[in-house]
Amino acid sequence: MPASFRRAAILGTGLIGGSFALALREHSPGTVVVGWDKEHVLRHARERGAIHEGVADLSRAVAGADLVFLALPVGHIIEALPEVARCAPPEALVTDAASTKRAVCAAAAESYAAQSPLFLGGHPMAGKEISGIAAAEAGLFRGAKYVLIREPGEADSAAANDVRVEKFAALLRRFEAEPVWLRADAHDRAAAIVSHLPQLLAVALAGVVRGQTDETGLPVILAARGLRDALRLAGSPYTVWRDIILTNSDNLERALDQLIQALEQLRSELRTRALEEEFAAAGELYKILRDLG
Amino acid sequence: MPASFRRAAILGTGLIGGSFALALREHSPGTVVVGWDKEHVLRHARERGAIHEGVADLSRAVAGADLVFLALPVGHIIEALPEVARCAPPEALVTDAASTKRAVCAAAAESYAAQSPLFLGGHPMAGKEISGIAAAEAGLFRGAKYVLIREPGEADSAAANDVRVEKFAALLRRFEAEPVWLRADAHDRAAAIVSHLPQLLAVALAGVVRGQTDETGLPVILAARGLRDALRLAGSPYTVWRDIILTNSDNLERALDQLIQALEQLRSELRTRALEEEFAAAGELYKILRDLG
Repeated sequence: MPASFRRAAILGTGLIGGSFALALREHSPGTVVVGWDKEHVLRHARERGAIHEGVADLSRAVAGADLVFLALPVGHIIEALPEVARCAPPEALVTDAASTKRAVCAAAAESYAAQSPLFLGGHPMAGKEISGIAAAEAGLFRGAKYVLIREPGEADSAAANDVRVEKFAALLRRFEAEPVWLRADAHDRAAAIVSHLPQLLAVALAGVVRGQTDETGLPVILAARGLRDALRLAGSPYTVWRDIILTNSDNLERALDQLIQALEQLRSELRTRALEEEFAAAGELYKILRDLG
Repeated sequence: MPASFRRAAILGTGLIGGSFALALREHSPGTVVVGWDKEHVLRHARERGAIHEGVADLSRAVAGADLVFLALPVGHIIEALPEVARCAPPEALVTDAASTKRAVCAAAAESYAAQSPLFLGGHPMAGKEISGIAAAEAGLFRGAKYVLIREPGEADSAAANDVRVEKFAALLRRFEAEPVWLRADAHDRAAAIVSHLPQLLAVALAGVVRGQTDETGLPVILAARGLRDALRLAGSPYTVWRDIILTNSDNLERALDQLIQALEQLRSELRTRALEEEFAAAGELYKILRDLG
């Protein structure tokens, strides 16, 4: 097992950053974990044992770190990248956990050069509808795919074979996450379907249910587990989603078009046997997902 | 507490009928529970302790019962209603658990008269994506709303105040279910939104995800809990849904139209601040559902 990181700076100690910090503490006890966030969040992160130390100043937080983990909304990550490139040691690995990868990786390509720290785009395919350090847990990444970004042609480059990247992938495996290498555009296309579309769908369904609910509480008061599961994602806040949607709107528009078409088709088939095939196909996907889980 | 039923005939001992039988055995130990279904299902229901006795002949199953519980697909319930009316004792209460109520109640109105057993439409708002006796459990109705059908003008009728109806409602309360009185058309409208629409939505989303999945397994292999929850209902079989959709297609068409409109609106708002309000409204509904749960 390669040696782990000496000092990790976690920029943003909410659900994802906080969980990453907790996982580090559990699986890499020799790593000093420094957090950077709002003061009350850092206090909470210290209380939960996620970080050794909270630092209010970004440049101080990353100074001396050999791993910088950016777990902020996409827009904030893009803003922070140049300062992190300047202030982190050149031997550091800088990686992010943003839910879209094209915008972040394009921004990183502008600030990270041969003399800078090495940048590696990443996205843990794990989450919850509740954000914040209170919901963080060391086991969040267990069993999850963890996308790491590699562009075509990069496979033989020094960066791809860099020992820091190997070390980071080994760390993820210690978290029981499974690294999956993808191009940024392939990631964003896939994430639009399996993550961002279900989110918008939950918001749309919630809108219909609310719109139909009358002063007697019908139909909401009849809701059972089916609706609750279908709407669990509706609890996820806009602050988390704004930048994701803005940086993946092309893929999302296409995914929404496909879903609208699928619903129109189901509507036209309601009274026909064609519906049986749609259910059978859905049942097969359900089994695939169940076996993956 | 009113005396319970002496002898219950459960027609269809799958997920719902089997769970009702198990709940009867637990909460009304003095009731003899007779099952009617395919032979291998009855054997399994006996093994699980859901029924005392399995009977292959419908008329023999309901003879002597003072409670007849129909837990079959809607179409089979409608077919069975006249024979049950003829063969069950006139002092029996006949009730069903179908997911749509207009068609069943209209059919019952034709076979049930003053000299027949009393018919009461019902729908437990509880279920699972897995059907069959193996998934049945005594606690399935705990905490669930249980719709009972009463038409306007019936409130003062003999049937509405019938002691058998009181006895059935009391039994549901012993199961920790909450009886909710509704008209059949109000039930079907509400069920279209909170139950049947989420089902079709899961089928449509599964279709999109499958359609986008390529030979590398993308995007499905990146699926996390969000997609799994959104697609849990996709495991529910067509055999359960065919008659539900056919007997509620008018309400479902309207609900699908509303959902398609909501998705088109979200699509047009992807790059605007209007999306924030949609997320906020969805978050409020999420909280209402969480508090109901």
